[in-house]
Amino acid sequence: MALELVSSSKCFEGEQRIYSHNSTVLGCEMKFSVFVPPCMLEEKKECPVLYYLSGLTCTHENFIHKSGMQQHAAKEGILIVNPDTSPRNVNIPGEDDAYDFGSGAGFYVNATQEPWSKNYLMYSYVTEELVELVNKNFAVLPNKKGIFGHSMGGHGALICALKNPGQYQSVSAFAPICNPIECPWGQKALKGYLGDDKEQWKQYDATHLAQNYAGTPLELFIDQGSDDNFLKQKQLLPDNLLTACAGNDHLQAIYKQREGYDHSYYYIATFVGEHIAYHAKFLKN
Amino acid sequence: MALELVSSSKCFEGEQRIYSHNSTVLGCEMKFSVFVPPCMLEEKKECPVLYYLSGLTCTHENFIHKSGMQQHAAKEGILIVNPDTSPRNVNIPGEDDAYDFGSGAGFYVNATQEPWSKNYLMYSYVTEELVELVNKNFAVLPNKKGIFGHSMGGHGALICALKNPGQYQSVSAFAPICNPIECPWGQKALKGYLGDDKEQWKQYDATHLAQNYAGTPLELFIDQGSDDNFLKQKQLLPDNLLTACAGNDHLQAIYKQREGYDHSYYYIATFVGEHIAYHAKFLKN
Repeated sequence: MALELVSSSKCFEGEQRIYSHNSTVLGCEMKFSVFVPPCMLEEKKECPVLYYLSGLTCTHENFIHKSGMQQHAAKEGILIVNPDTSPRNVNIPGEDDAYDFGSGAGFYVNATQEPWSKNYLMYSYVTEELVELVNKNFAVLPNKKGIFGHSMGGHGALICALKNPGQYQSVSAFAPICNPIECPWGQKALKGYLGDDKEQWKQYDATHLAQNYAGTPLELFIDQGSDDNFLKQKQLLPDNLLTACAGNDHLQAIYKQREGYDHSYYYIATFVGEHIAYHAKFLKN
Repeated sequence: MALELVSSSKCFEGEQRIYSHNSTVLGCEMKFSVFVPPCMLEEKKECPVLYYLSGLTCTHENFIHKSGMQQHAAKEGILIVNPDTSPRNVNIPGEDDAYDFGSGAGFYVNATQEPWSKNYLMYSYVTEELVELVNKNFAVLPNKKGIFGHSMGGHGALICALKNPGQYQSVSAFAPICNPIECPWGQKALKGYLGDDKEQWKQYDATHLAQNYAGTPLELFIDQGSDDNFLKQKQLLPDNLLTACAGNDHLQAIYKQREGYDHSYYYIATFVGEHIAYHAKFLKN
């Protein structure tokens, strides 16, 4: 599990780095981004870690270029890890053909259908291999770990937290897909990666998982712009998740609707500081 | 001079917009970005305007995606305008072949050499046509106008201010090319756009202009990362400009060197708030 440093740039007194490594789980070379806060550089201090999962079409770079998150992570003293959204260059015919399936669209599930099942195991990658890699290579507090994301990655963050009670101390999502079983993006991805049996899809559906969650009490911070075209197109369906949470005493949903904001990184940039401060409440106590 | 709105996204309670228009000066369709601060939207208030000129290879989008400037412009109530770095698609053979000449590399000069002289008139575009367009279409205070930029665009900002005493109330530059006559990037561009006669180059060289500046007193805020590869490669040469300013009573240079920072947008994002606050001192008094 050797890490290779691809680049490092000083940013808000911390360092925005990109690493590559050969992923055992995914069977390919993967890149991921790490923002190292100044306190970890200067004081060799152990820090909480916050994972960010990106949306469709993104790589490990969109968030670090466009969100402006570094200033907030620097202030709070949190390491931010942002993996890629799928395996890359694994030579599956058609892997790069669609924006919403295959490369750039791993959906943070473990595929069971050929030919995807050999490499497209993003759920295990982000919850296991990447976490082990980060724990081994950075001075992070292993029990102070949060997760957030955007759109497909917002859903990824929700399912990682809901499927692993107690493992993530905080979770939030910008404009997440909330009920993929019921939306076109989710149906295409879950059918392609998991096959025709819809029972199998439920294990990766945040709304279904919320209905059945019985773990340690968990708060879900859901953020949504009111002018988000994908909300209007019923790709996101936050109401279904909120209803599920309302019916489950183990879960508490905080829902913030942002008047006039769309699905873009301009929206994320506006509220990423609020999210990082939210995670800090849980990760720094 | 009709403007077409290409896109608009809410951002920090303001709006990040992209416009296109047919440029009379450049003879092609041009895009530019405008961040409209919330005070202009909500209170219909007249605002100062700050122009940002980008560096080599950039379009009108790099700065608005990567700098995180919107939060600072929103706070200060300043309209930010970011043009493209060259004419586009003007069918000059080879226009897209090099990263440091032709498209993406207009250098903010008025070319005199065929075939560039018909379209590559970026100096007139940014100091005249774009300013008229902005003044006509936005509620900006015409006498509260600042300019800044990065690298090639930092040089562009400096020459716009130095060649037009009193027209810009403030100027700053991130890692600017300071003396293009003496560096490889500048020599290639100035020779290509202006021909072999080096006397002609001087009218677009910030250091030469600073040596001979005799206008209203002007302060130049020069920002530079100490780990900037292009500084080490002697493309930027800030010392030459600082020496010129030191010898001219009409000019005052403020030079800030940032320890460990490189030439990237991570560096710009770290200090853009300081720059916008600097401009606000001049533009809001």
